[in-house]
Amino acid sequence: MASGLKIFYNFQLVKPDFSGVLDQPQAMVVKAGRIQWIGPLSQQPSVKGLAAKVNLKNQKVFPSFIECHTHTVFAGTRADEFEQRNQGVSYLEIAARGGGILSTVKNTRTTSKKELLKLAQERIHHFMRQGVSTVEVKSGYGLDLETEIKTLEVAKALKGPRIVTTFLGAHAKPKEFENYEEYLDFLLINVLPVLKKKKLSRRVDIFIEKNFFEVEAARKYLKKFQDEDFDVTIHANQMSQSGGASLAIELQARSADHVIHINDEDIHEFSRSKTVAVLLPAADLYMQCEYPPARKLIDAGATVALATDFNPGSSPTQDVMLVGLLARLEMKMSLSEVFLAYTINAAKALGLENEEGSLEKGKWANFICTTADMTDFFYSAGHVPAHTLFIRGNKVKI
Amino acid sequence: MASGLKIFYNFQLVKPDFSGVLDQPQAMVVKAGRIQWIGPLSQQPSVKGLAAKVNLKNQKVFPSFIECHTHTVFAGTRADEFEQRNQGVSYLEIAARGGGILSTVKNTRTTSKKELLKLAQERIHHFMRQGVSTVEVKSGYGLDLETEIKTLEVAKALKGPRIVTTFLGAHAKPKEFENYEEYLDFLLINVLPVLKKKKLSRRVDIFIEKNFFEVEAARKYLKKFQDEDFDVTIHANQMSQSGGASLAIELQARSADHVIHINDEDIHEFSRSKTVAVLLPAADLYMQCEYPPARKLIDAGATVALATDFNPGSSPTQDVMLVGLLARLEMKMSLSEVFLAYTINAAKALGLENEEGSLEKGKWANFICTTADMTDFFYSAGHVPAHTLFIRGNKVKI
Repeated sequence: MASGLKIFYNFQLVKPDFSGVLDQPQAMVVKAGRIQWIGPLSQQPSVKGLAAKVNLKNQKVFPSFIECHTHTVFAGTRADEFEQRNQGVSYLEIAARGGGILSTVKNTRTTSKKELLKLAQERIHHFMRQGVSTVEVKSGYGLDLETEIKTLEVAKALKGPRIVTTFLGAHAKPKEFENYEEYLDFLLINVLPVLKKKKLSRRVDIFIEKNFFEVEAARKYLKKFQDEDFDVTIHANQMSQSGGASLAIELQARSADHVIHINDEDIHEFSRSKTVAVLLPAADLYMQCEYPPARKLIDAGATVALATDFNPGSSPTQDVMLVGLLARLEMKMSLSEVFLAYTINAAKALGLENEEGSLEKGKWANFICTTADMTDFFYSAGHVPAHTLFIRGNKVKI
Repeated sequence: MASGLKIFYNFQLVKPDFSGVLDQPQAMVVKAGRIQWIGPLSQQPSVKGLAAKVNLKNQKVFPSFIECHTHTVFAGTRADEFEQRNQGVSYLEIAARGGGILSTVKNTRTTSKKELLKLAQERIHHFMRQGVSTVEVKSGYGLDLETEIKTLEVAKALKGPRIVTTFLGAHAKPKEFENYEEYLDFLLINVLPVLKKKKLSRRVDIFIEKNFFEVEAARKYLKKFQDEDFDVTIHANQMSQSGGASLAIELQARSADHVIHINDEDIHEFSRSKTVAVLLPAADLYMQCEYPPARKLIDAGATVALATDFNPGSSPTQDVMLVGLLARLEMKMSLSEVFLAYTINAAKALGLENEEGSLEKGKWANFICTTADMTDFFYSAGHVPAHTLFIRGNKVKI
């Protein structure tokens, strides 16, 4: 349609809080991918110009999923290492054998941009097949100027969903540097200018943990990025009460991710802030650690999102349904809370809440339509109920 | 090929204990679906008659998976009930609201054979896409003559993999009966003769648990089936030390399944018997209960198999990779042990160890070939590495 006008009609719209569906058949007018109007079919305004009409035949419609924490661009597998770890070999021993993050760094550095793009594009398609319309992708397996830039360029080149890139140079310290602060200085002096020049990302992330990047150095580092208008997100309190969550709130970060080891005071802080607590239960399953206190966070009024944390080490799965299932089983989140966590709350974690995450006037027409029941989602591990994904009003075919 | 002769050549054969691959390129001569010869390509005997030659291009080859415990034929979902249970509603309350096994029974009774077949066939295809060549299917959502027979007839009509049917009339007591023993008598008197006449199954299963079917009544019941040459399997020790596992060993059952609540004496008995301990960790995840003592069983020398326990209540997933992953993470089974548990040990649980579960002369040519590493299996929840499945020498297309 030259006008880019589409009218979707005759569907059951899921309520914004996912508590059920609206009574009357609904319609949605989409122009150039954005929702121009949404409401009861009986009240649909007439539109000027030619419009493609799409009868959704009484299917349910709800906002598509947003994956707000992934490390999708990498080369190599750490499946070998998983077996070793699982059979009792320690992290230190695995690192000594050349495993861990630095093994993925080695593989990612030596893999061509073309090959990295091919690998990552397949993974992105796998997310899309599950109803995901936006994927956050972090760098962090380069840890040098060339590969961090290469990773983000690959991420930018991915086709299909909206890609949100995040610079995670501060994922680990590469061997080339003696100490953590020296490496952070390198990132600020040598990498940040290139990120800006090439417009590769507007988000920065850091892994804060005892004996890794520590709070004081992280604060200084992140503030420099904020001075350049970057949004902040933090890998926080995954293994200990590292202070990362508090720093995230202090800096008004978009999100603090993992947040397993948080206390009641942290939870209170989350509830008074806009910083989203991004929970990553698949990683917790793989790491065989505790699950974060989702119930306490939600009950206190904090905003909770969910994501796969897809990466080759601690969460080698892209199973969105499993993530929601674990949230339900292990953290006692309700099904509605899981849907919110994978839609509007994930949009908030990415600073996209004015554009995505719910079906409202002015937002992108990113939605799932299905004949399945809502209760069939986040229920069967490894299985997404049959559905169709629309991104910016276009049906996704993969 | 009129002769039904096929020669597969140029592949890496995985060792019988899954510890690695054989050094030399291998070949396999298959006649009418069975392995006539398997060994190093350099020693391949000449064959008489026309043979189709299939170059497997140095891919890895290993026996395909056997799903030895499923309840694949049912109608309706219990996803609603899952949410209730997960939000703290008790079993009794759910049963009072019409949930639980009896809700599936109601749906299965009122669903036509044609519709049941359609539902089950889709599920069977989902197993096949994961590399499964044999699926055990239990009845047990009928609990009356008509529906138990209907269920097994549907199972028999399923296309694709080999289907092994098991009569699980003693799954629960239907409302129509006052007490458990009266219901077992009904099954013996009214259902067993029809099973025999229609040749619907040669295997019997029973759910032994305190306040359900108890050991004394079960012994009597199962012996009657053994008199008719049925193999025995038992849902044993899932919720308590019910004595089901001991009874299974006493009766030389093919398998005792679940076996979460077993003590050292039970483990010792398993190690001295041929009864396979079938572990169902996906059900344990969904039920949020303990995992069975796999490590102790294996270390004692018992035979351990794994399966999904796919059913609409306690294990609504068909994710074979997740089952193996949970076995590794939660029960510390090694990757090789998981492969054995899903191949030859699962064959033993079904009494098919002379026909399937390993690639040897005389057995069916049921195998997986893949360019992936063996460590990529049972690793990423929801994702089976790219592979091709052959059943009886024929490439499966779904």
